[in-house]
Amino acid sequence: MAGPTLLFASNIDDPAPWQALFARERPDVEFRVFPDLGDPADITHALVWRIPDGVLASLPNLQAVFSLGAGIDQIIRDPAFPREKPLFRLVDGGLREQMTEYALYGVLNWHRQMDRYRAQQAQREWRMLEAVHPSQRTVGVMGLGVFGSDIALKLALLGFDVIGWSRTPKELPGVESFTGETGLDEFLGRSEILVNILPLTDETRGILNAKLFDRLPGGGALVHLGRGGHLVETDLVAALDAGRLDWAMLDVFPTEPLPAESPLWNHPRVLVTPHIAAQAVSAAAESAILGNFNRFERGEEPTGRVDLSVGY
Amino acid sequence: MAGPTLLFASNIDDPAPWQALFARERPDVEFRVFPDLGDPADITHALVWRIPDGVLASLPNLQAVFSLGAGIDQIIRDPAFPREKPLFRLVDGGLREQMTEYALYGVLNWHRQMDRYRAQQAQREWRMLEAVHPSQRTVGVMGLGVFGSDIALKLALLGFDVIGWSRTPKELPGVESFTGETGLDEFLGRSEILVNILPLTDETRGILNAKLFDRLPGGGALVHLGRGGHLVETDLVAALDAGRLDWAMLDVFPTEPLPAESPLWNHPRVLVTPHIAAQAVSAAAESAILGNFNRFERGEEPTGRVDLSVGY
Repeated sequence: MAGPTLLFASNIDDPAPWQALFARERPDVEFRVFPDLGDPADITHALVWRIPDGVLASLPNLQAVFSLGAGIDQIIRDPAFPREKPLFRLVDGGLREQMTEYALYGVLNWHRQMDRYRAQQAQREWRMLEAVHPSQRTVGVMGLGVFGSDIALKLALLGFDVIGWSRTPKELPGVESFTGETGLDEFLGRSEILVNILPLTDETRGILNAKLFDRLPGGGALVHLGRGGHLVETDLVAALDAGRLDWAMLDVFPTEPLPAESPLWNHPRVLVTPHIAAQAVSAAAESAILGNFNRFERGEEPTGRVDLSVGY
Repeated sequence: MAGPTLLFASNIDDPAPWQALFARERPDVEFRVFPDLGDPADITHALVWRIPDGVLASLPNLQAVFSLGAGIDQIIRDPAFPREKPLFRLVDGGLREQMTEYALYGVLNWHRQMDRYRAQQAQREWRMLEAVHPSQRTVGVMGLGVFGSDIALKLALLGFDVIGWSRTPKELPGVESFTGETGLDEFLGRSEILVNILPLTDETRGILNAKLFDRLPGGGALVHLGRGGHLVETDLVAALDAGRLDWAMLDVFPTEPLPAESPLWNHPRVLVTPHIAAQAVSAAAESAILGNFNRFERGEEPTGRVDLSVGY
């Protein structure tokens, strides 16, 4: 066997910049693009967004799997995924700033009533709407990992009343935090704007459902940039139509691309974006993944090691 | 003469909450609402957004003028304005957070191509557009006073490459600052997104004109939350139509309300808001103005003293 061989596999990412990156920085690494595996026994590392079930398990000399994004549920849902292999997700690489931008945009769009102002503009109507100072507006951030913490802290810096909810207790300055099922009731009951950035696990699958929407204060907003599997689409549409929710901004969906027949596309109080909250196309993502690859090879600990016992 | 008498005058603000505030906190102050002056000699203080020319000059016992907003140009453009009287603008009172929210929203709307995503949604089109990491995006903040400094610092915290321009040199962490006409060329040449939050003075009147737009990198965005007198509307429309500017978000206009015949209303690349970037309706504004009134009466220095020699 020669040097390291990296298998690239994604249904949405262009391999070219990654191939160029490794050619430039690690010319000793052979770069192969799925489905052109060559001899499966050559492959030592995999850089993956999605790959068909069973392929990773068929690589006898695979040492580690690196996700091209922050999510890994799309990788581990493969029943044959080799769970004993180290799996690393992209924890920063420029994703964090983009996630925070997206969440702030959603919060500000509803908080500042920008859709109403857009509608007024279309009617050439000059009318001030009543403003709410951010200190009087409670934003609940569900998920306080690398991304959620940054979102919560930045919202607090802008003067919002920020509360957070996470699996394990978290201490963030200026952010009142809640934990577990017991904390969820108060957390949801106060969240005028709910930002979801949870990981997708068995416990969080379908968490954005009617039961959750009913526990919100009513008439508020949802900014969903977690994972598609969190969302029960029919429950969301019902909550919007019943006024339980006033507005939603959604970046991820149970089925992607969002099917043309989805009622979310033309719902007047829904903003749909095509999974763009954070795009791992930047130099920062390249540098983070290359750094992780190098650390793993040197026997050092890469960032973003996934703990499969908790699922993220 | 009895105790202090406050004259309230605004073409846009409801006097009721202010009257209630003073009745509650300072019942010794007589509160009069323009045009019901009563005896002009009674009036000792004025709380003003706009008042007809000459009225303030006709009050023989006027001691101080408090602006209901951050701007004071609408007060001092009265040729008869008694320039020897102390004039105070609202420097915070909840305005700062709102100004920053507005500026961030405008920056994020263009930076994240949200109008394109909205247009795609209307077509049920699922398509990722290329993203730019904030570190690769230069935002220029023109005006680095109380509001501009906060905007620049918050943009820097979000990871943007932030530069600033102001009349006098300013040092803000993480913000490269430029001064005067010599610095303006480089500042504008690098500002992909230009945020204007200058005060309106003889030097800045009409500053958003063709000459300025021509010095921008081209194809960028303008977020204008300064003062209406900064904007040369025809030059802006020409810059948009020529592609010198890709997009503009505008909160203030030479004539307000924006006239129905303005081409800005239905320009596809303009977002018009009705002077709502910061609304002095909050408890914070009330508390700031009441605090200033009390400080002035006790002989202490209120905040926001206007220096008429520089015009703000």
